[in-house]
Amino acid sequence: MSNELNTCIQACLDCYRSCQQMAAVHCPEVGGKHVEPDHLRLMLDCAEICRASAALMINQSPFHQQLCGVCAQICRACAESCRALGDMDECAQACERCAESCERMAAGSAS
Amino acid sequence: MSNELNTCIQACLDCYRSCQQMAAVHCPEVGGKHVEPDHLRLMLDCAEICRASAALMINQSPFHQQLCGVCAQICRACAESCRALGDMDECAQACERCAESCERMAAGSAS
Amino acid sequence: MSNELNTCIQACLDCYRSCQQMAAVHCPEVGGKHVEPDHLRLMLDCAEICRASAALMINQSPFHQQLCGVCAQICRACAESCRALGDMDECAQACERCAESCERMAAGSAS
Amino acid sequence: MSNELNTCIQACLDCYRSCQQMAAVHCPEVGGKHVEPDHLRLMLDCAEICRASAALMINQSPFHQQLCGVCAQICRACAESCRALGDMDECAQACERCAESCERMAAGSAS
Repeated sequence: MSNELNTCIQACLDCYRSCQQMAAVHCPEVGGKHVEPDHLRLMLDCAEICRASAALMINQSPFHQQLCGVCAQICRACAESCRALGDMDECAQACERCAESCERMAAGSAS
Repeated sequence: MSNELNTCIQACLDCYRSCQQMAAVHCPEVGGKHVEPDHLRLMLDCAEICRASAALMINQSPFHQQLCGVCAQICRACAESCRALGDMDECAQACERCAESCERMAAGSAS
Repeated sequence: MSNELNTCIQACLDCYRSCQQMAAVHCPEVGGKHVEPDHLRLMLDCAEICRASAALMINQSPFHQQLCGVCAQICRACAESCRALGDMDECAQACERCAESCERMAAGSAS
Repeated sequence: MSNELNTCIQACLDCYRSCQQMAAVHCPEVGGKHVEPDHLRLMLDCAEICRASAALMINQSPFHQQLCGVCAQICRACAESCRALGDMDECAQACERCAESCERMAAGSAS
């Protein structure tokens, strides 16, 4: 397995873990804008797509690049939503790292 | 595959779908008590365990009974949390049907 | 939730269930071509992407169309792999129904 | 989040990754005993339960101990199945580390 694939799997699992924890623990505890429909759904979407993208890369699926492309889009949107809230920079960083890694996979520079 | 196993897989997938939709769409839209930490987390826990229980039954795993036992406990707690909110009776019913079916599986009357 | 979205969620869950069962039970029991790397991986990829696509549609995610586009591609490949084996027509049909439904979602005629 | 919870989440994600990769890539490539029904199903069961256990711990679910108890049982069985094959010691180790960590969680020494 290539280094880049390995890095991207780890970035997806890290981002999954961060978004899942924020959606299930941090955001409901803080309340207010943190539980507004668009933000909370985006956190859940991002957790889901990161977990699925990690799975297809672990499987060494010939379709992982297409899925990484979708994953990068969701991570970018989720990072933006986290940045706007002010106290979610760590989650935003996990999303941005995952987006960058998935964008490289989607661009076909790795396998 | 036995009828009872089939029924339980379907009950788990139905409960997964209901809890996932409530947690990602209904509860954030209604707000207030619907996004309090204990309730929202329970909805997410229930969606997760139902999906995993369905998977192990689909796999005809020799460990599905133990997992169904845990699933039933979470579904009972989730049903109670939904009933307390007043406008989530449909989701509570999906949880109760799933709990009953999983309790039968856990009791070992099926395989 | 629109009828078409509902139908596509169900098609994804049906296809997930069929591919998961074939990969975990039927294919290893039959052996031979059924457990060749390309076929088995495709079954697992298809189960994974169908489950994730169902989740994003249940979430009413604004990104579900892109994911349905990827799901349709994997379902088409999986259907072809099943047809080639001769005794997996039921699974191939679940994949084809899911592919058609996801292609309609991806084409943007629904939300 | 306690150190022990953190360690167990990581052990579950590592074990998930190892079992998923073996089931989707290594075992089908090697063939023979590696794709016999009991072994392959156990790998898939183990990947599934580890992913779900990680999720409930990330959620800080009050039900994570019960699920960790089931996870430990499946990991023990999977480790034994991997050890018997001779060339899967790395995966067996991931299963054993996860089993030990989950057994500690189930015994209630952490939260």
